[in-house]
Amino acid sequence: MQFHHQGYVSGDPRVLPAAGEGIDRPADLPDEVDVLVVGSGPAGMLLAAQLSQYPDIRTRVVEQRAGRLVLGQADGIQPRSVETFQAFGFAERIVAEAYNIAYMNFWGPDPENPQNIVRTSRTEDYAKHIGEFPHLIVNQARVLDYFAEAAANGPGRIVPDYGVEFTGLTVHEEGEHPVEVRLRYVAGPRKGEERTVQAKYVAGGDGAKSRVRDAIGRKHLGEFARHAWGVMDVTVNTDFPDWRIKCAINAEAGNILHIPREGGYLCRMYIDLGPVADDDNHRVRETPIDAIIAKANEILHPYTIEVKQVAWSSVYEVGHRVTDKFDDVPEGSDRTPRVFLMGDACHTHSAKAGQGMNVSMQDGFNLGWKLGSVLTGRSPESLLATYSAERQPVAQELIDFDREWSQLMARKPEEFESPQELADFYVRTSDFPSGFLTQYTPSMITGEAVHQELAAGFPIGRRFKSAEVVRVCDGNVVHLGHHARADGRWRIYAFADAAAAGEASALDSWAQWMQDAPNSPIARFTPQDADVDAVFDVKVVYQQTYDEVEFAKVPPLFRPQTGPLGLTDWEKVYAAGPGEDIFEARELSRSGVVVVVRPDQYVAHVLPPEQTDALADFFAGVMIPVPSPANARSGAPKTAATS
Amino acid sequence: MQFHHQGYVSGDPRVLPAAGEGIDRPADLPDEVDVLVVGSGPAGMLLAAQLSQYPDIRTRVVEQRAGRLVLGQADGIQPRSVETFQAFGFAERIVAEAYNIAYMNFWGPDPENPQNIVRTSRTEDYAKHIGEFPHLIVNQARVLDYFAEAAANGPGRIVPDYGVEFTGLTVHEEGEHPVEVRLRYVAGPRKGEERTVQAKYVAGGDGAKSRVRDAIGRKHLGEFARHAWGVMDVTVNTDFPDWRIKCAINAEAGNILHIPREGGYLCRMYIDLGPVADDDNHRVRETPIDAIIAKANEILHPYTIEVKQVAWSSVYEVGHRVTDKFDDVPEGSDRTPRVFLMGDACHTHSAKAGQGMNVSMQDGFNLGWKLGSVLTGRSPESLLATYSAERQPVAQELIDFDREWSQLMARKPEEFESPQELADFYVRTSDFPSGFLTQYTPSMITGEAVHQELAAGFPIGRRFKSAEVVRVCDGNVVHLGHHARADGRWRIYAFADAAAAGEASALDSWAQWMQDAPNSPIARFTPQDADVDAVFDVKVVYQQTYDEVEFAKVPPLFRPQTGPLGLTDWEKVYAAGPGEDIFEARELSRSGVVVVVRPDQYVAHVLPPEQTDALADFFAGVMIPVPSPANARSGAPKTAATS
Repeated sequence: MQFHHQGYVSGDPRVLPAAGEGIDRPADLPDEVDVLVVGSGPAGMLLAAQLSQYPDIRTRVVEQRAGRLVLGQADGIQPRSVETFQAFGFAERIVAEAYNIAYMNFWGPDPENPQNIVRTSRTEDYAKHIGEFPHLIVNQARVLDYFAEAAANGPGRIVPDYGVEFTGLTVHEEGEHPVEVRLRYVAGPRKGEERTVQAKYVAGGDGAKSRVRDAIGRKHLGEFARHAWGVMDVTVNTDFPDWRIKCAINAEAGNILHIPREGGYLCRMYIDLGPVADDDNHRVRETPIDAIIAKANEILHPYTIEVKQVAWSSVYEVGHRVTDKFDDVPEGSDRTPRVFLMGDACHTHSAKAGQGMNVSMQDGFNLGWKLGSVLTGRSPESLLATYSAERQPVAQELIDFDREWSQLMARKPEEFESPQELADFYVRTSDFPSGFLTQYTPSMITGEAVHQELAAGFPIGRRFKSAEVVRVCDGNVVHLGHHARADGRWRIYAFADAAAAGEASALDSWAQWMQDAPNSPIARFTPQDADVDAVFDVKVVYQQTYDEVEFAKVPPLFRPQTGPLGLTDWEKVYAAGPGEDIFEARELSRSGVVVVVRPDQYVAHVLPPEQTDALADFFAGVMIPVPSPANARSGAPKTAATS
Repeated sequence: MQFHHQGYVSGDPRVLPAAGEGIDRPADLPDEVDVLVVGSGPAGMLLAAQLSQYPDIRTRVVEQRAGRLVLGQADGIQPRSVETFQAFGFAERIVAEAYNIAYMNFWGPDPENPQNIVRTSRTEDYAKHIGEFPHLIVNQARVLDYFAEAAANGPGRIVPDYGVEFTGLTVHEEGEHPVEVRLRYVAGPRKGEERTVQAKYVAGGDGAKSRVRDAIGRKHLGEFARHAWGVMDVTVNTDFPDWRIKCAINAEAGNILHIPREGGYLCRMYIDLGPVADDDNHRVRETPIDAIIAKANEILHPYTIEVKQVAWSSVYEVGHRVTDKFDDVPEGSDRTPRVFLMGDACHTHSAKAGQGMNVSMQDGFNLGWKLGSVLTGRSPESLLATYSAERQPVAQELIDFDREWSQLMARKPEEFESPQELADFYVRTSDFPSGFLTQYTPSMITGEAVHQELAAGFPIGRRFKSAEVVRVCDGNVVHLGHHARADGRWRIYAFADAAAAGEASALDSWAQWMQDAPNSPIARFTPQDADVDAVFDVKVVYQQTYDEVEFAKVPPLFRPQTGPLGLTDWEKVYAAGPGEDIFEARELSRSGVVVVVRPDQYVAHVLPPEQTDALADFFAGVMIPVPSPANARSGAPKTAATS
């Protein structure tokens, strides 16, 4: 965590100084906004936290509910989400608070007494071997609290406008704020009032019954619900020995997905209520809680639960649907998208793979920096078309995965070839639910994998998988990727060739080009009055051990002097670790390689250090040069160190 | 972290429900209080956080300053303190925020150019090998913030009364509230007003110039200052390569202790200003900051620092003094102590071993549960005499250690036998500054080491050194000691003999005795209307692996049903780990052993499970039986599980 950079900070360093719109932010919704977020769910609140890092953008979040979420909804937190929390600064707190999944156990009918269940397998949770982040269970309400805190503590000081319902919108063809949004106050002193807000962009994260989706005429496609599940958050006393372990139970009497929750007592149970008749007309949703509990006891036989408190319960019918496109641009048109869909507004499915909240958050993460870049003039509006292009296929994959998983979960025991089949599926497919299989295809922000072999462990289009390195300035073993905060900056990691700092090398030439060449991304795209690392955060990793790297001989690019005091940044220079060697762990070329990472942590490009033109070309396609002189930063950037 | 135990908690689980005095706690200082804490430093604020766990005790903290500490003061956080933070629930946050010490480097004169300094040694910080907690640097202000949060979020809802100065006290011989404390408002609307508050007990944490100490006539004994140091918190640009590593620099021109600080830029430097003449009369304290910076540059030669911001600076003279006794009871008397001294009020020394704040916090931790136990009627008043008896010798050891260390630090280079001498001392003595060498001697709360060989790794009188175990209910690898919160409860760890759960065993007999015998500590000392684990938190660790332990066969003692809902507590049953086996790591008897741990985490006793009488006798000396029937809990405690 870096702070004191703009002067001494006495209080909580997680509270950043207010700036721009965050200074004297009006409590009341203004008539014109840059971004209007509809809905304060996981996608919407991540987006708010992200845009709070762009304080010159006027962002508001409208939420129909009168206040924060209190109960229910999602609770599965995949490792990729914890990685994301890390970038927003609250991973360690939520890990301390959540249930950590160590095992998933499977139960089936006892072959000798089929009306009884027995444990058929214990499976280590996939997160144990997949990376440094755990697989958690914690109520969505708390995830939203943490994002709300990050949004409120960011320079933009964003807080949701509660009690405001979205009723419709019209996208006009002209104007600075072409989206006319109709709203109604449904709580608070202005309750009943209707009003209109003009927005540059609207992000709809308003749930499965999204009215934003309806307003832009998008269709939610896919199968109708055919199967009902009861869900309840309960505290109980029980003789079921796996009450505190995640379990899939496939009994003669039906199925349960059992999820222990944060705090040591509470659990969530998904209880199979069976197929829904065609003419049911949602009557199944009126199943009383007592019937759900009775069904759970039937399935758990010979074990029983004695329910002490039902914190929340619901009945839902599983559908698998995905929206055809995640923005308002008609197929074939290339106009700028003005309205986006995120989360359940564009993909709905069963809750049982624990994916919904996670994929939704990644929608928000994908959209946030793009809106930020466009609205601050860093990138062309065409960047916004990549949102739907990237996220719609991910949602489709999710739907396919969840359909398979939930069909397996709803099977009768005799439909399995072996009791191991469900456990095998769980382990075999673990990369997907971890959130690490998302693979973006080549586009203006994802390079072609021409030089992928130079960094085989950082696949282009996948999220940057961190590894341990040693920070040269203080000898601490740290995760290279954890230094990257969700601040909208691009990361460029220069993995050095074999020469030591101070010797002529490919790295040295590359660094000099980055710092001095008129066509380097820094010169072309960093505003003249901004810090040299305001847009590109460039770091180096040497092959030598940390004590062999002489800091003073490292190219000045990697030790810039920034901020109002022009202080040297000591945290951009790293060395391969004595334990995990990142060059081996990530199969990095010993001749040096440059890895470009997007603000949402996805690897955008892998290039040899010699191919500076290719690097320049890549960014020329993503970014808008700063006002002339285009190479204003050539020579020495305002606050860069000179050697 | 356990919660949802009293019903579903939607918000931050770190905010406990208000209770007792915490409900409608008056903003204004009342006329009568149970405990008056004077000073909101590390000892005082830990004490406040601890007493907030006893909401039936009326605790107030008066602080002369008008608000929270903003700048300066201590910054070294020893591993024992991080362990303590863990018990108060904020370790992971402060670790994320602080500077983590990986190395300490040593610099001396270049033999060839003695006016230049060169690095003579790199030493791994002792914390790296001493346990699971790091060695940190972070401003005292932040430590106080975290304790203030814990105090405010505890059931007692304690917040300091700022702007209130202590002017004197009188201990009367009679009355419920025998300490008459004189106070003056020095800030806020009542500024200038004087008033009197009657207290049962007063804890003086009011610093080196303690007026509480003066008021009870205690003497601060030891040598006068003979040596002056300048100290400054600065951001700089520099070519000194170890700016971000803790260093001891012994140059021809003088000495510097260099401490990197949180946030990546700021450092603290202690700069040797040399011996102070007898007739100096504190003039050295007026040394201007420019002279201190000039001196630093002289010492750092050939390197230089260009200071960009001085966040804080001071000049102090090193004295080593300790108060003869830490309470108001005259030597030889056995009356109940009414006034206690903590922290700098009773031990002052150099800042350079980074000990002051740490030892002060342990003063508060030692005193807190004792006041809590006496004021809630659990323990006799005689317990309070152990505070001075235990902490005064610790302070004396600290003074002795710091005198040696600061004399070494102030030596001229030619006075060392070898450049390694200082580094060797640092490594050799590392247990002490970690905070882990404190050893309490036998007393009413520290048993005789008659059976120490049954648990050699848990020395009686030392702090309980946690080790990894597997939680049976969910298979998570956890640290046994980290489950223990600073909630005033005693911990009793029963390490099982070789038999499995459900088989007849020494453990089983012991558990039955604990649960059913009229002379068991639970029966004698746990209030009838309280949870069975309200006073004694009893846990078991089996030798088998976690999946071999059948939860339902574990004695009911270890799976009690508690709280308003009578919910089973699943987190008292553990198994030896597949990685670290606690039985090996802590040299525990395979025939079973019972380890008793005090509320402040010190090992109180080690006994074989068969010696139930010895266990009963031990607690009979510390605690007061609950109102008759003394064995009200014999048979089944109100909410205990029955097998």
